[in-house]
Amino acid sequence: MRRLALRFHLQLLVATLMLALIQQTQAANSQAMAKAQQFTLPNGLVGVVIPDNRAPVVTHMVWYRIGAADEPVGKSGIAHFLEHLMFKATKKIPAGEFSKIVSRLGGNDNAFTSHDATAYFQRIAKSRLSQVMSMEADRMVNLQLAEKEVLTERDVILEERRSRVENSPSAILDEQMSAALYRNHHYGIPVIGWEHEIASLSRKDALDFYKAYYAPNNAILVVSGDVTVEEVKKLAEEHYGKLKPSAAIKARDRVKEPPMRTPLKVELKDQRAGKPMWSRHYYAPSYVTAKPGEAEALDILMKIVGGGPTSRLYKKLVMDAQVASSAGGYYGGSGLDSTKIGVYAVPNDGVEMDKVEAAIDAVLAEVKEKGVTPGELERAKANYIAEYVYESDNQSTLARRYGWGLVVGRTIPDIDAWPDRISKVTPEEVQKAAANYLELRHSVTGTLLPIAPDAPAAKPVSGSRS
Amino acid sequence: MRRLALRFHLQLLVATLMLALIQQTQAANSQAMAKAQQFTLPNGLVGVVIPDNRAPVVTHMVWYRIGAADEPVGKSGIAHFLEHLMFKATKKIPAGEFSKIVSRLGGNDNAFTSHDATAYFQRIAKSRLSQVMSMEADRMVNLQLAEKEVLTERDVILEERRSRVENSPSAILDEQMSAALYRNHHYGIPVIGWEHEIASLSRKDALDFYKAYYAPNNAILVVSGDVTVEEVKKLAEEHYGKLKPSAAIKARDRVKEPPMRTPLKVELKDQRAGKPMWSRHYYAPSYVTAKPGEAEALDILMKIVGGGPTSRLYKKLVMDAQVASSAGGYYGGSGLDSTKIGVYAVPNDGVEMDKVEAAIDAVLAEVKEKGVTPGELERAKANYIAEYVYESDNQSTLARRYGWGLVVGRTIPDIDAWPDRISKVTPEEVQKAAANYLELRHSVTGTLLPIAPDAPAAKPVSGSRS
Repeated sequence: MRRLALRFHLQLLVATLMLALIQQTQAANSQAMAKAQQFTLPNGLVGVVIPDNRAPVVTHMVWYRIGAADEPVGKSGIAHFLEHLMFKATKKIPAGEFSKIVSRLGGNDNAFTSHDATAYFQRIAKSRLSQVMSMEADRMVNLQLAEKEVLTERDVILEERRSRVENSPSAILDEQMSAALYRNHHYGIPVIGWEHEIASLSRKDALDFYKAYYAPNNAILVVSGDVTVEEVKKLAEEHYGKLKPSAAIKARDRVKEPPMRTPLKVELKDQRAGKPMWSRHYYAPSYVTAKPGEAEALDILMKIVGGGPTSRLYKKLVMDAQVASSAGGYYGGSGLDSTKIGVYAVPNDGVEMDKVEAAIDAVLAEVKEKGVTPGELERAKANYIAEYVYESDNQSTLARRYGWGLVVGRTIPDIDAWPDRISKVTPEEVQKAAANYLELRHSVTGTLLPIAPDAPAAKPVSGSRS
Repeated sequence: MRRLALRFHLQLLVATLMLALIQQTQAANSQAMAKAQQFTLPNGLVGVVIPDNRAPVVTHMVWYRIGAADEPVGKSGIAHFLEHLMFKATKKIPAGEFSKIVSRLGGNDNAFTSHDATAYFQRIAKSRLSQVMSMEADRMVNLQLAEKEVLTERDVILEERRSRVENSPSAILDEQMSAALYRNHHYGIPVIGWEHEIASLSRKDALDFYKAYYAPNNAILVVSGDVTVEEVKKLAEEHYGKLKPSAAIKARDRVKEPPMRTPLKVELKDQRAGKPMWSRHYYAPSYVTAKPGEAEALDILMKIVGGGPTSRLYKKLVMDAQVASSAGGYYGGSGLDSTKIGVYAVPNDGVEMDKVEAAIDAVLAEVKEKGVTPGELERAKANYIAEYVYESDNQSTLARRYGWGLVVGRTIPDIDAWPDRISKVTPEEVQKAAANYLELRHSVTGTLLPIAPDAPAAKPVSGSRS
């Protein structure tokens, strides 16, 4: 009785907290909706401004609607390679000076490449915004690549691949799982590229890619911080407005997956693996490709099933059955195309992989058959909304939220309505999402098995033509 | 003692027969080497002539150095689709008349598409060779495609896919296994194409592909039969010589596979499957990509391991252990790029898949560890050489042998030297090939499991974006 009463009080507390959070969010949200503002320059560049005048700093980002999944066949890694090369010379700025100048101005900068987008950003004093815009606009069209610098940078990237992938059995397994899961779509090709293809990327490849995709009408400018939309638009007109749009830019038209009909299994034995690992990816729609409400339901589902130590997977495998030292899952729904749900576990010493897999399958079967409880649903919603509110307090996170959303074709109202949509997900929608997408036939299951150091080395045989 | 003596006599008989066959082959071979002759027209068209004057008929083939593995991304099936459309109209010949004309001339004709080549051929009276050449040269450059015919033919191909793949669980499994095995190379995409991509192929796609790849400098003319090289060259000059070469034709540069590091497993459950099936593909070099002697050793290896009812797999699984109703293996080494070794078995009723797999793995482990016996080696060689001699008696097979060899970049002397190279394969080379290429990390294992008709239908969920 005592316990029941406690549970009731906890649920009441959670419900009350959630209500408060939703109200706070809706306020923050309506504020955000008023605040994130968009404009488009005559040359096609889209601008988004998220004012935040608590400190005289800004985050300036330029997003290109181009990523690793758009690369030409045989040129994997070129999007990421070009991202590196964008820090080389233009007519105005010598090679390697871009970041140094930003640093001397008191700011910092970086860039990243994903399958769907490439972005460049600086965080800097408001008074320097015009100068970094001038530099970013300059390298959008004036990149100068010296053969020698290209080759040196290629070595840097090959080393990056060696340290991040080749020396990491779990990264190799992940790469092999993606290659198996996507039969047709280029999400199956690693963002950094296949080593043998990186090794043959040339200056010409980089320039071809640059000329094809870097243009104001393929870019989204995002500025968050101590600015007004009028200020940003004026600066954008001055720096980006003078750039000519490219007639070659077209809407992205990616290949689609054929129907998935067979579960796949991938097994990696590696003497460098510290612990065994079990991992599964299910093919699932993204926010862009899902039917209305589906992606939100998948977010809720995977929070309940695998989000942290209160999740079903953690409780069942780690706490109750004690077959794993960690276990969880996630939904990766931010892609332009359908991507995946991930589930994983690290078996405890001496526990067979099959036993761990059976325990996971039981958790997944239960949620497919019986759905989730109202308490779980409310906690998951409260958790997401709390995260959303928390993240909305961060200038850089806000810039990424809108930049990422717009680069995959979503709109500001769509992005802003997310907490509201999350709060409306029903238990039926969650169960339906589980039934539809935790489907073994659309999955790849990977296992990583450490082997004794004296076992034959897992030296891969290259598939290159002789 | 009786049995030993008999075995000795049998081995002697085999050895004697083989010696006779090799001598016969070397004679046939030197004859063939004198006979298969090659010329090149100024426009780049390569001609091969294999005279055979036993009957006044000829086989006329035109091979294009273009196949399904060369298709643009997202346009899978276009090579095969175009092959169908080549039987539509030119300025001179109305749609659908090509084959009817050949038939009225007393001949027959057809065409085929593979990952590496597309070929068109007619078998016809010698006196009609000039006429079919004229027609083949005409459709090499003058294809006329009406929108309506293209759409009708696309439906024909979608129906072909439905009947050949969608209605065949073993074909679906094979397709899924190839998609998994090749992480990067387009051998992972079916020749007929993915259904959703076939469905969107257009007249423009077909014409773009046609214009890009159909030209005399991308074609190999092969004529076998009652002709001399002089006659064929004269006719070729008359009909093909007037066609302009295309400046767009370049050497094929296919993507390569990244290193293969993980065994893969694919499982298909289908209520339409009559029997369970176990199948494995190992990634292996082709004659074009292998080091000298390797491909020949692989041919010998797989003849011994899996070629027919005297093979190790058949004897162990079907006759001795009686776990399978059929079992075998093969090496598919004819590709332009590295392809595969296949191994398969059909389990007997009530025998677990795992038991069959263990029996197969034992056979493969034994050959890797202990190699093959001299008797097995000699029988395999004799068998290949007998097949070669037998096939050399057939006009159409000869035309295909040289056409296929040349279209993947081999030469007539290289093709003719095959029996000699096969006869020189050593037991060490066979064992080394087994050790190098029967490697689980470079494999995909597929299982087909019938399920009860009242089990949930294996309806695939399409991965198309909504």
